[in-house]
Amino acid sequence: MTRFFVAPEELRPDFLVLTGENARHAKVLRLKNGEQVLVCDGQGRECLCTVSDVSDGMISLVVHKSMESQSEARVDVSVYMAFSKGDKLEHVIQKATELGAYEIVAFPTARCVSRPDEKSLKKKLERWQKIAASAAEQSGRGRVPEVLVLDSYSKALDRASQTDKGILFYENEEAVTLQMSLSTGTWRSVSLITGPEGGLEPYEVEKAREKGIEVCTLGKRILRCETAPLCALSAVMYHAGEF
Amino acid sequence: MTRFFVAPEELRPDFLVLTGENARHAKVLRLKNGEQVLVCDGQGRECLCTVSDVSDGMISLVVHKSMESQSEARVDVSVYMAFSKGDKLEHVIQKATELGAYEIVAFPTARCVSRPDEKSLKKKLERWQKIAASAAEQSGRGRVPEVLVLDSYSKALDRASQTDKGILFYENEEAVTLQMSLSTGTWRSVSLITGPEGGLEPYEVEKAREKGIEVCTLGKRILRCETAPLCALSAVMYHAGEF
Repeated sequence: MTRFFVAPEELRPDFLVLTGENARHAKVLRLKNGEQVLVCDGQGRECLCTVSDVSDGMISLVVHKSMESQSEARVDVSVYMAFSKGDKLEHVIQKATELGAYEIVAFPTARCVSRPDEKSLKKKLERWQKIAASAAEQSGRGRVPEVLVLDSYSKALDRASQTDKGILFYENEEAVTLQMSLSTGTWRSVSLITGPEGGLEPYEVEKAREKGIEVCTLGKRILRCETAPLCALSAVMYHAGEF
Repeated sequence: MTRFFVAPEELRPDFLVLTGENARHAKVLRLKNGEQVLVCDGQGRECLCTVSDVSDGMISLVVHKSMESQSEARVDVSVYMAFSKGDKLEHVIQKATELGAYEIVAFPTARCVSRPDEKSLKKKLERWQKIAASAAEQSGRGRVPEVLVLDSYSKALDRASQTDKGILFYENEEAVTLQMSLSTGTWRSVSLITGPEGGLEPYEVEKAREKGIEVCTLGKRILRCETAPLCALSAVMYHAGEF
């Protein structure tokens, strides 16, 4: 079923009107009177609606049912990914959204080659949020994950350590697996931290430990910086019983 | 440590010579006498060597230790992916290799838009195998997964059903999760089958069931055709205790 996102204040219990980008999209899809669509507030609530009128730039809908989204994960997984070169962050934002991430957080580390300045970051962040919105729509999510940028590694650690479980992946860690780390309890919120192309500095890994973040391996094979977060996220979702 | 792949017959117990592409690569890396490297036969055996001579187009190595590769997965996972548009198969080949796939098998299904002809397929297959070799090298694998092309969906099912466990992912399956499917035993070899952009036809799903292949969900969110195989592969590796 086609899915539209509107601002939370636009979601009403009786009838709805789609305008702007949504109306343009509806036109492309050639929506007709009587067709059913889902309208989501991007924060986990959605309405099952029927098209009642199609006019230029405006689609009217009758609301049948208002409900909690059924497609959100039972665990809130925050994906913390260091700035990386090229379009790797865009790739991860798209895929992590499909895979059900709660939010995606980008931050700098010592070995980051890519360090966008404030001006380009503002533009990028807008673009990243659009990628998340479009992936949320395509994958049938009821919530658009927020994309955040933090200006230091320390802030990333502080924020990640506020979730129930914080995990950092390090290629030199051999003893502690993600499976061991997750099997010690049940978690409502998990943060997964991965480094840039060149990896993390040993002192950065220590800093994470000091903040109570567990350091884990992702196995014997070296994963690229854009593969590691998606592999970890898939595993956490699997562990949480999502599939 | 730098890793070179040679043909199995070139792997010797005492000394080795790198030529051609390997020698060029060694020159780019500015390998010097006394440096240690790993030489793999791409089939799971590797030698720890020291550079003993660097000359134009030829690197001589002394072999110290010959061993089974330590970085191969305990479970052989075959990734069966339907032909898809653009460079999605290339993407999956690269990532699946990093994630430890045993082999990657491409095949047509009813709704495949992309159907490369025999001539272009030959070229593509060469390219795909190169992508796998390069990803195996980068991720530190001791084995280069083979990339195969089958000319029908039936052949893909027949081949996949020969592994210990064959699983097909279908977006309309709701009851059986991958977790349920994997928890019924331990598996030495697993095949994971995913469809093209437009999904599989219901009769294709039935055909898989008839061949003893289990039909599973990958969760409540619709994954793109290039995301699904990598998500499933990550989960199987996690389940098998790889990380």
